[in-house]
Amino acid sequence: MRDHGAPIERLKHPHTLRLRRLGIDTHQEAVVYMRADCHICRAEGFRAHARVGISHQGRSIVATLHHVIGDLLRRNEAGLSESAWQALDAREGDEVAIEHPPTLESLSFVRAKTFGQSLDDAAFQAIIRDVAAGRYADVHLAAFITACAGGRLSRQEIVALTRAMVEVGDRIDWGKSPILDKHCIGGLPGNRTSPIVVAIIASCGLTMPKTSSRAITSPAGTADTMETLAPVDLDLAAIRRVVEREGGCIAWGGAVRLSPADDILIRAERALDLDGEGQLVASVLSKKVAAGSTHTVIDVPVGPTAKARTPEAAALLRERLTDVAQAFGMTTRVLLTEGAQPVGRGLGPALEAADVLAVLRNDPTAPADLRDRSVALAAALLELVAAAVPGAGETTARSALLNGRAWTKFQAICDAQGGMRVPPHARYTHGITAAHPGRVTSIDNRMLSRTAKLAGAPEAKAAGVELHVRLLDLLERGQPLFTVHAENPGELAYALDYVAARPAIVGVVS
Amino acid sequence: MRDHGAPIERLKHPHTLRLRRLGIDTHQEAVVYMRADCHICRAEGFRAHARVGISHQGRSIVATLHHVIGDLLRRNEAGLSESAWQALDAREGDEVAIEHPPTLESLSFVRAKTFGQSLDDAAFQAIIRDVAAGRYADVHLAAFITACAGGRLSRQEIVALTRAMVEVGDRIDWGKSPILDKHCIGGLPGNRTSPIVVAIIASCGLTMPKTSSRAITSPAGTADTMETLAPVDLDLAAIRRVVEREGGCIAWGGAVRLSPADDILIRAERALDLDGEGQLVASVLSKKVAAGSTHTVIDVPVGPTAKARTPEAAALLRERLTDVAQAFGMTTRVLLTEGAQPVGRGLGPALEAADVLAVLRNDPTAPADLRDRSVALAAALLELVAAAVPGAGETTARSALLNGRAWTKFQAICDAQGGMRVPPHARYTHGITAAHPGRVTSIDNRMLSRTAKLAGAPEAKAAGVELHVRLLDLLERGQPLFTVHAENPGELAYALDYVAARPAIVGVVS
Repeated sequence: MRDHGAPIERLKHPHTLRLRRLGIDTHQEAVVYMRADCHICRAEGFRAHARVGISHQGRSIVATLHHVIGDLLRRNEAGLSESAWQALDAREGDEVAIEHPPTLESLSFVRAKTFGQSLDDAAFQAIIRDVAAGRYADVHLAAFITACAGGRLSRQEIVALTRAMVEVGDRIDWGKSPILDKHCIGGLPGNRTSPIVVAIIASCGLTMPKTSSRAITSPAGTADTMETLAPVDLDLAAIRRVVEREGGCIAWGGAVRLSPADDILIRAERALDLDGEGQLVASVLSKKVAAGSTHTVIDVPVGPTAKARTPEAAALLRERLTDVAQAFGMTTRVLLTEGAQPVGRGLGPALEAADVLAVLRNDPTAPADLRDRSVALAAALLELVAAAVPGAGETTARSALLNGRAWTKFQAICDAQGGMRVPPHARYTHGITAAHPGRVTSIDNRMLSRTAKLAGAPEAKAAGVELHVRLLDLLERGQPLFTVHAENPGELAYALDYVAARPAIVGVVS
Repeated sequence: MRDHGAPIERLKHPHTLRLRRLGIDTHQEAVVYMRADCHICRAEGFRAHARVGISHQGRSIVATLHHVIGDLLRRNEAGLSESAWQALDAREGDEVAIEHPPTLESLSFVRAKTFGQSLDDAAFQAIIRDVAAGRYADVHLAAFITACAGGRLSRQEIVALTRAMVEVGDRIDWGKSPILDKHCIGGLPGNRTSPIVVAIIASCGLTMPKTSSRAITSPAGTADTMETLAPVDLDLAAIRRVVEREGGCIAWGGAVRLSPADDILIRAERALDLDGEGQLVASVLSKKVAAGSTHTVIDVPVGPTAKARTPEAAALLRERLTDVAQAFGMTTRVLLTEGAQPVGRGLGPALEAADVLAVLRNDPTAPADLRDRSVALAAALLELVAAAVPGAGETTARSALLNGRAWTKFQAICDAQGGMRVPPHARYTHGITAAHPGRVTSIDNRMLSRTAKLAGAPEAKAAGVELHVRLLDLLERGQPLFTVHAENPGELAYALDYVAARPAIVGVVS
């Protein structure tokens, strides 16, 4: 085919508008505000909700167009959402070029996956490149996540997705081995073992540069909890400095560009409250591979309301994780752990941090389950790198806690990360008690997490739930079951409304 | 469980803010703008992107919160997107109550579906009620659509979804039988038979109140095309009046509340460019059941780039459509038709309207394929209601066209709908010609549709593609293949960029 007919006037230079800061925070999605009757919208036929390309001094983004039909902007002006403003590093009055964005070809692969087709390396690379570059609108992210959930990714596809996620970001080369790491797939509230495990391992002279994520669908991620104890927003240079000095760190992975697409996908998963298993494996392992880990222990809690609900589901996940890790030359051990009830007492960043501190300080009231799980994970790591003979890991790990070396190491790590902090306390609390005497026969992790989130966690650091009972506890009438913590009365009321409608969060049988 | 502890101050009355019209058009999704430091955001802990409930004089909606951090609003003010403004029927300065929205329980069913579980009637009812009430954010709609696509709905689930979609809207009772209807599942550009079939059937004295949708993923829906010929935005009273007078109408279904959730789902499908088969069946049949149709013919084009790509896929779709229709007591005949190339010459509202007019007027240059398909569909309908003996339907239908009765009837229907219009012409056009002599061996419907959409269709009524060749045509070098039509130079350039990168849109083999 070739062109013919009268030559049309091609747009040699893109259209420009002057930026005005409207100060609208849309969260993740980049939005551009333009008058419906500006020359660009008219010439390009841009309608509300169109995706448009914006360039500014060598940076470019794709944003969703919201039309302004009043006097909020002049015809030669454009506004940007705060996230777009930051992504473009814009200043008031700057000129930006606005044009049609390149066609998003990778969406055809999302469509193919939705219709049950298998995707190859090139397809995942194309998708992940576009995701990392911020070219996907929230609805596209939602479709991709949903299409991959529910067991719809093969082993080969998970490897391809993991590789694509690693390749689009930075990779840390530590120049030595072993580099230890651990991960919990989540789904078990309060399972905040990482700070304790890192402290134990680093106190044994091994290297464990731990990068953690923020919460996906839970009331707190390790990064959220750790942030109440020390700064976690470290760049790569800071992480290297901390690890060189102390042998370990507990940093937020999002501040370095390790698997940056993962952070975008995680935020979208959180909005959907959805966390599929293929994406889970790719999310975990892409971070580990990019972080340069050589030996990793993965904690998979199994329980009726955990992410892995049955031993079969857990075994499948173990197989997938081990198998995909192997494709990247990583030695992995997956521990299936008890997941019937929350670990420790707190759910929510500051409440979980209190449990961590209690264990590290050998506080006699420290939650034994959190201590025992941390010891088991540290033991598995010590044995995995032959720093302890099989069976002896647990003794080594436990003595590091008991003799105070882990606690000293933890404080040193916090200092190295920028100084230790005291977790905040909630201003508003309300207790829920047993309506009748009896035995605790069930604790619904999901509803408890939901309660903690409705109370404001993880954004409200002090918010969450403090659990006072364990499975099989024998209770009197009126004995406290759990306390809801919130930073404002609105969120407390909202969480308590939810609790009032669900008497089965903690099941007590007479 | 029971409450204990100090009584907390419950919010007896919801918080209120005064409305200011910012004039921001966000398309479908309702957005509310509030200062991050207003008393409600602080008390309730509302963060950017939260979903919040807004009530105003008996109406209530759920909106996505965008924070304002500058002086755009005062602390006691809230702004609304235009769609939210209209949904609440708001006026400047009105007071609105803003609070946490009810928990969206139906999302747990979307999650269950994503993980491969089967949903029952109650689950679909809960989802569709929330969709119709506008409680789903765009990402939730995207997840629901994706989770249901790719053959993941059983026959029973499609029946349940269809029923839920019917129940949430109005139903028309015509008080007589038969009520004829037709539908094309789409995927075949230019297949604009409905106006012709309605004209033929109504001219035979039968009743055919046709409600059509706007484009989902194509450059024009029947409603978009018909709108260039007459008003289609008729309410139920107007539809009844037109049908009583003329026996038929071609109206936009969205102006009446027939399966209103469908319109919301369709807009979301369009943003995703995704149209799954279970939802397709529910979409088609819910509209037909709600419209009170008793006898329906459904056109399923089959071809390599049509929605049904193989005879097997088409047969499965036929089975699903017939089967689900039967569950609602509707008599249905599904015609599998040739779908290898576009029907007629035009793609885009006005260009397709020109083809329709040519057929109705017996123009000697009228596209024969559009005429023959319309006759076949009308014949199937006539035979389905025994208005013609088997085999005689085609003669009856064709003679209604040839003797001008269908054309007269069509003009009368347009008059009854509010007056006939002349379709607009595009100001900017550009032709693509054959680069070498040869035979036309392929026409890519999807790329042609894409081109028409990039040129501005369906929103830009005159935009689209005019196809000058048919499969197997023998061409000279330089002979025109197709012409791109646009309403502005930007969109023309955008469409031509796309064409230039895809020499295989029309395949010519020497």
